[in-house]
Amino acid sequence: MTQHNHQTAPTQFIEANGIRFAYRRFGKAGGVPLVFNQHFRGTMDYWDPAVTDGLARNREVILFNNAGVASSSGNAPASFQEMGANAIAFIKALGLIKVDALGFSIGGMVAQEITAQAPELVRRLILVGTGPRGADMSTSKSAEIFAGAYDPPEHLWLAVHFSPSPSSRAAGLAFLKRKLLRQDRDPEVSAEAAAAQREAIGKYIAPAEGVLAYLKDIHQPTLIVQGSNDVIIPTVNSYILQQSLPNAQLILYPDANHGSFYQYPELFVSEADQFLTAALQGDDVSLQPSDRLPFPSILSAKGI
Amino acid sequence: MTQHNHQTAPTQFIEANGIRFAYRRFGKAGGVPLVFNQHFRGTMDYWDPAVTDGLARNREVILFNNAGVASSSGNAPASFQEMGANAIAFIKALGLIKVDALGFSIGGMVAQEITAQAPELVRRLILVGTGPRGADMSTSKSAEIFAGAYDPPEHLWLAVHFSPSPSSRAAGLAFLKRKLLRQDRDPEVSAEAAAAQREAIGKYIAPAEGVLAYLKDIHQPTLIVQGSNDVIIPTVNSYILQQSLPNAQLILYPDANHGSFYQYPELFVSEADQFLTAALQGDDVSLQPSDRLPFPSILSAKGI
Repeated sequence: MTQHNHQTAPTQFIEANGIRFAYRRFGKAGGVPLVFNQHFRGTMDYWDPAVTDGLARNREVILFNNAGVASSSGNAPASFQEMGANAIAFIKALGLIKVDALGFSIGGMVAQEITAQAPELVRRLILVGTGPRGADMSTSKSAEIFAGAYDPPEHLWLAVHFSPSPSSRAAGLAFLKRKLLRQDRDPEVSAEAAAAQREAIGKYIAPAEGVLAYLKDIHQPTLIVQGSNDVIIPTVNSYILQQSLPNAQLILYPDANHGSFYQYPELFVSEADQFLTAALQGDDVSLQPSDRLPFPSILSAKGI
Repeated sequence: MTQHNHQTAPTQFIEANGIRFAYRRFGKAGGVPLVFNQHFRGTMDYWDPAVTDGLARNREVILFNNAGVASSSGNAPASFQEMGANAIAFIKALGLIKVDALGFSIGGMVAQEITAQAPELVRRLILVGTGPRGADMSTSKSAEIFAGAYDPPEHLWLAVHFSPSPSSRAAGLAFLKRKLLRQDRDPEVSAEAAAAQREAIGKYIAPAEGVLAYLKDIHQPTLIVQGSNDVIIPTVNSYILQQSLPNAQLILYPDANHGSFYQYPELFVSEADQFLTAALQGDDVSLQPSDRLPFPSILSAKGI
């Protein structure tokens, strides 16, 4: 049997919550699969094959479109809570009882909601270029970047994901090439779905008293990754996430913007792979304390 | 020929700047050696063998006592600039023209000074549990922790380096065991040397206009590592370092205090090893951009 990869995995469909979810599934079967949650206006084709295939070497990866996005049916709801509930329905429809969740940008917000709503379903969490409820967007350049004109139009994603330095831009062009390799492609995200996602962001980032309190209940080992200078979701939000989650490791990459893990895919895959495969307390293994990665702990007052 | 390790490497001496520097050197020779710069009141015996021997698998490591510390002669100066100048003299006396520098706590301040004063001497930099000039010490518990009484006295270092959680404390006890394995030990740091180090800290953290400007000139690829809740040098300082250095990767470990790399030694060694061995722009190798780790870039305004 041929093992599929990012380019060859067929698009499959499964029904849940009245939605026909499109998904692709590939990599090394048998362990805990890793479910990818996509960014604003992204489809299954927007992931970097260097990341998905890299992580698929040691586990199964599952890409999907949430409700109303690209080839999935239904309407995109205007809140991450509802997107999280839809994602949970999708995961359970696949018959899975335990997954790792990766979320990028608004996908990281959905991944947090999945974990908050169905903690028993999620083993470990990877949050890339994202932020908590009430995220500090004061320095975000998102509105002007998405409103800009690009020639070719695909270069919007250079502005979103990469920094202006020559090396980051070169990494960005290499990413765009990788991204466009797949032949059998998803339709683009509709204006309606994008509008719903935008509305969800607006609600999510509204400041509120105690808005970070929910993070104390997310005890899953979490790896947080962001670029040094994220112009879409400001980098400080990953620092706030790390300081507020009981059990999170933070990695910030240099000279990097929103798509930091596409700029350093080998490095990211190596670090994420180590995080996902490391033996943790609570796993069925016996280790010296020094061998252990992160485990839940009582959150101390961090003064943030 | 037997290869030495943390426990067996003999203490050697070399003269420079009128000081007789004590040092130990072991590991895999032939590449760029890694020079370790120690924390407040620490001697060569205070490093974690799991870290030094771990990193010595792929390179030579050099431990030393700076001027006036333990088995080195001379007086400890009361500024990190002078400690940096002494360290440079020591490194050059060994005939080395290029090293990697690791600094822990005030050793990280010395390592920054080495790099600022002799940029051609330093290839890459690892800064653990440290901060920039003008560091924010407002939430530090250092004074009360060092003034405390401990039974046994060695448990001071549990309070300094580890968090109160059971798992961190267990990791701390394992570290203390490893630390005390070596037979042929350094004398402890004198009260005079400790006082000079304390005075150096006081000068270093004084707030001043533009105090972070020097970091823009440190273009060496830098790995910054700290615990989530460092009670000696507050964690926010590593975030400030990362945001201010042109080319730095940040890693924050969960449930960890000042000695985060002693709590997760295998993880740290793996990440530091990857950082030190990765091919970077400027090295004599040709790589795809996506294979490259961090390279110098123009620092964008980060709004901090």
